[in-house]
Amino acid sequence: MRGRFLVLEGIDGCGKTTQLQALADWLPVSGLMPAGAQLITTREPGGTALGQALRQLLLHPPQDQAPATRAELLLYAADRAQHVQTRLEPVLAAGNWVLSDRYGGSTEAYQGYGRGLDLDLIGQLEQLATAGLQPDLCLWLELPPELAAARRSGQQQDRIEAEGLAFLQRVHQGFAALSQRPAWRRVDAAASPEQVHQQVQQLVREGLELAQ
Amino acid sequence: MRGRFLVLEGIDGCGKTTQLQALADWLPVSGLMPAGAQLITTREPGGTALGQALRQLLLHPPQDQAPATRAELLLYAADRAQHVQTRLEPVLAAGNWVLSDRYGGSTEAYQGYGRGLDLDLIGQLEQLATAGLQPDLCLWLELPPELAAARRSGQQQDRIEAEGLAFLQRVHQGFAALSQRPAWRRVDAAASPEQVHQQVQQLVREGLELAQ
Repeated sequence: MRGRFLVLEGIDGCGKTTQLQALADWLPVSGLMPAGAQLITTREPGGTALGQALRQLLLHPPQDQAPATRAELLLYAADRAQHVQTRLEPVLAAGNWVLSDRYGGSTEAYQGYGRGLDLDLIGQLEQLATAGLQPDLCLWLELPPELAAARRSGQQQDRIEAEGLAFLQRVHQGFAALSQRPAWRRVDAAASPEQVHQQVQQLVREGLELAQ
Repeated sequence: MRGRFLVLEGIDGCGKTTQLQALADWLPVSGLMPAGAQLITTREPGGTALGQALRQLLLHPPQDQAPATRAELLLYAADRAQHVQTRLEPVLAAGNWVLSDRYGGSTEAYQGYGRGLDLDLIGQLEQLATAGLQPDLCLWLELPPELAAARRSGQQQDRIEAEGLAFLQRVHQGFAALSQRPAWRRVDAAASPEQVHQQVQQLVREGLELAQ
């Protein structure tokens, strides 16, 4: 039986890393996974060796020259194509499960809603990069950008994080729009990590039952 | 007045580097360029700082894992998007001329004809990457793949060059098909470097007159 594909989405500072780890610890003992199935955690950009090199280029570009908007979009698509073709598809086909930190939703939210690139164009590129692979369940950890920024104050920022509040607010609106899709669920990420994890557990149980 | 955009295409070993240098030396003294216009030579992949990093990834991928076919196509498109948006367009808009070692034709020939990726898909990606920028003149240095391979014997090969003769023959057929387009000209690259350069001079004179 083909494995399940779960994704966490949200802006930096929303608690994604903490919740990904908690979910990765819980899933194998949740009773949801078939006996023998492994859970693979991964992320975008950077889920492959090529992707790690692309992640460095995207977050810390050479000579500090930000990629042009269309080049940036194509680099995320290249990272995803490599991830899907060489890692996600083989893992899922073998019956194992995948939990990814970001996937196509981030491109729609950041490049589409955030940078204002054409959403139809992004959709066509997504189709090319993913060959149609969609998550069974996508959890959006919703945290207002102001709160996320406060949580991250004092930490060194990469290029995307330094974009400013107005950009992150557009990204946030993008995630809000995407979260209306059938496979998406909204998580209130302003609660304590334990409370957020309880929400995540419940949404995963319900979401995967529906997707049976 | 907007500058002119010239491209040399062909498989490795066809003499492209030599002819590019000879053309770059001749053009400024040819009488074809307006007074004050500069000639910029560049190449793909690798015409920008980001592109140089991508060129390394494409020709010498990390952990020796060749990029997946769709990822490779998207990386070339990202290189081109950065090149067009940050370098070619500003140079041409300022009235200067561009001479590039490879451009979109290489993607059609290598990824389309060589790897068998869908040509319509490649065309859509090209449109996205180039925003419609096409060369005024594109010279294909035609050399049979067997001869090109013999010329390069003894040199260390990169990943693309090591693809084998059958692949290069498909690429060659691709260039032959592309060379039927109005802006393309075929050069017999099996002749001596001096004879090839004479052909190039003549084709550039005639080609740019036609494109007036």
